[in-house]
Amino acid sequence: MSFNDPIERRGTHSSKWDMMEKLYDVPQQDGIAMWTADSDYATAPCVIDALRRAADHGVFGYMPIHDDYLNAIQWWMKTRHNWDIDTSWALTSQGLGNAIALCLDLWTDPGARVVIFTPVYHEFQIKIEKAGREAVTCPLKHTGDSYVLDLEDAQSRLDGSEQMLIWCSPQNPSGRVWTTDELRGIAEFAARNDLILVSDEIHHDLVFPDHTFVPMHIAAPEVEDRLIVLTAASKTFNIAGQRTGNMIIPDAKLRKEMQHRLNTLDYKPAALSLQMITAAYSPEGAKWADAQIRHLDQNRKTFDAAIATIPGVTSMPLQATYLAWVDFSGTGMSYDEISQRVRKSARIAPSAGPDFGPGGETFLRFNLATQHHRVEEACARLKDAFSDLQ
Amino acid sequence: MSFNDPIERRGTHSSKWDMMEKLYDVPQQDGIAMWTADSDYATAPCVIDALRRAADHGVFGYMPIHDDYLNAIQWWMKTRHNWDIDTSWALTSQGLGNAIALCLDLWTDPGARVVIFTPVYHEFQIKIEKAGREAVTCPLKHTGDSYVLDLEDAQSRLDGSEQMLIWCSPQNPSGRVWTTDELRGIAEFAARNDLILVSDEIHHDLVFPDHTFVPMHIAAPEVEDRLIVLTAASKTFNIAGQRTGNMIIPDAKLRKEMQHRLNTLDYKPAALSLQMITAAYSPEGAKWADAQIRHLDQNRKTFDAAIATIPGVTSMPLQATYLAWVDFSGTGMSYDEISQRVRKSARIAPSAGPDFGPGGETFLRFNLATQHHRVEEACARLKDAFSDLQ
Ligand SMILES: Cc1ncc(COP(=O)(O)O)c(C=O)c1O
Ligand SMILES: Cc1ncc(COP(=O)(O)O)c(C=O)c1O
Repeated sequence: MSFNDPIERRGTHSSKWDMMEKLYDVPQQDGIAMWTADSDYATAPCVIDALRRAADHGVFGYMPIHDDYLNAIQWWMKTRHNWDIDTSWALTSQGLGNAIALCLDLWTDPGARVVIFTPVYHEFQIKIEKAGREAVTCPLKHTGDSYVLDLEDAQSRLDGSEQMLIWCSPQNPSGRVWTTDELRGIAEFAARNDLILVSDEIHHDLVFPDHTFVPMHIAAPEVEDRLIVLTAASKTFNIAGQRTGNMIIPDAKLRKEMQHRLNTLDYKPAALSLQMITAAYSPEGAKWADAQIRHLDQNRKTFDAAIATIPGVTSMPLQATYLAWVDFSGTGMSYDEISQRVRKSARIAPSAGPDFGPGGETFLRFNLATQHHRVEEACARLKDAFSDLQ
Repeated sequence: MSFNDPIERRGTHSSKWDMMEKLYDVPQQDGIAMWTADSDYATAPCVIDALRRAADHGVFGYMPIHDDYLNAIQWWMKTRHNWDIDTSWALTSQGLGNAIALCLDLWTDPGARVVIFTPVYHEFQIKIEKAGREAVTCPLKHTGDSYVLDLEDAQSRLDGSEQMLIWCSPQNPSGRVWTTDELRGIAEFAARNDLILVSDEIHHDLVFPDHTFVPMHIAAPEVEDRLIVLTAASKTFNIAGQRTGNMIIPDAKLRKEMQHRLNTLDYKPAALSLQMITAAYSPEGAKWADAQIRHLDQNRKTFDAAIATIPGVTSMPLQATYLAWVDFSGTGMSYDEISQRVRKSARIAPSAGPDFGPGGETFLRFNLATQHHRVEEACARLKDAFSDLQ
């Protein structure tokens, strides 16, 4: 099986493909879905095999969170991220959106202020507001081809009533892999302002050669009394539809509080998710994840090379994630015109930059986790849609 | 495939089999697990096929709750239970334990009193207490071979501060299928006392010939402004491990409140659960469910006949469910001695009667959803363990 094997996702109840026309007004028939963050190729064979074994067995009764699953999580964090965790630290949520919602519900008061650094995964702000909390958006500093922190500016936006910081590392949508120094800066910022630090590390496996992801718990172990780390096999192994993620909580008190909440709500992961994740977090899974990075590396090179030929449009060099963050500000066009050209003329549905908060106004985010030929097709269409700029 | 095909569940992370020794001190090697409510045989071929198709596709990205799934739920309620529901009424929970927890969380205040009729599914009381609410246990009247309601007695136990009634229909652990009159009695009781009525109808498909299940919404449509109906494919199709259930809420206001809660918590069902349930709620699934009833009917007849030979032990005639409710009071033995004989001498792990609340003190509950030969083996062991009574 190759990442380039064609797979038809239309008509499979895929959000990305089957809701594209409704949400983005891009024709189902020959549109290219490049929005929500899942992949268009099949997951690792070891994960599919686990599912086939489950189908052969045929019984889908109650299954507790078990040691093989917890040991697999531990093994993955250790071998892939050099992070030693105790299996007892790993609680299971119904995906990371749910994990963020649970953190907000448990550790912030109604109306509380919650800090995020924008542009950032749009659901952070949506979750904060749905929970009846208030988002404090601190802008990242755009340096042209990257983002850096401006913690002084961030500090000036706080009024002392903040209770939580939701952090994204590696960063969606910019693909930044934060350095140890930057992570320590964030940790100190959280400590200084007495914030619970939720570190969403869902993209930790999708890091390109020459960059090294550092888990927050390794960068700043001294903040573990306020640290919730979120990870998942969902992006890495294209199993986001299974709605299962990790809440890794080193601190005993915080962990007990979350465990109590999970018990009260009777949250338990689906048996098939446990089986798929156990299979994914394995040596075979690791080999597949490495091969995926090579595939994504080619896709982003192809994509960036094409974008570079369009005057006024720049694709941020990705250090991680399969999400290309493309700035159209140099074209001088309005966001509406850009969006119109991409959706109507190129027939591509990317994610809307403005949704990612302040700083995203002139951007679109393109999901490159697809077959290489589809990236090429998207590139050709984009060049065409902006050919008048040449 | 037959319900009698041997399937090895030990070593598959099955709660029922692999936690039996730890929880019940019944040897894994030759013990018989007859406790938690899942089945030992494979689910319907159409459900397994759906899983195989998903494995062949290989992509497990985001999948919304979709019309095929909602239509399948609607079709099932109509064709199997003569119940007309609007697809918009069906919300999805992470199983019915979770649904009950969400109802408690949403519609009762901390410390509130919640009414249950005992003996009843033990998790009702556990969920109430975990949520920091108080259970008001109203005993069902034991008539020897069944239970009936005593609403006058129940009324006398209320102090006016009750907010919810959690009702089980068909009833676990007695297997009662309530009549329309009884259901109307419960509905009036809920209305008179201004209680939200949570009707847990998870066992609605497991009804034996000569008995007809009536959905609460059909029996008492006039209480729909306070009615939450819980159903699931999980018991019927042995997919409880998938943690997915229905909250069917005809009332727009209540439904909106629950939908808001689900949105806030970012609860979404797993894609594979959607696919399995859509496949289950189908004509093929219905045929399989009919065949299952015939299988369970044989199992209960074999079981009841064997129990009838043990002096002082009576198995309540089941009208529904695969859960035999067996009264040992006529033996004159203490609960400890009964439990000891069943676990140590017969090497069977049933559910403990006392866990089901007042009225369950002298009972054990045996799960008969297994291969027929295993029921026979259990019968032989039980006769043996109590042979001195002959
Ligand atoms: C940073 C980040 N966190 C969380 C999520 C969503 O996770 P889940 O699908 O588990 O809710 C995404 C998905 O794109 C993401 O990019
Ligand atoms: C009456 C009743 N409600 C709910 C449940 C549990 O449902 P779930 O596994 O979906 O949490 C059971 C399981 O035995 C049950 O008998």
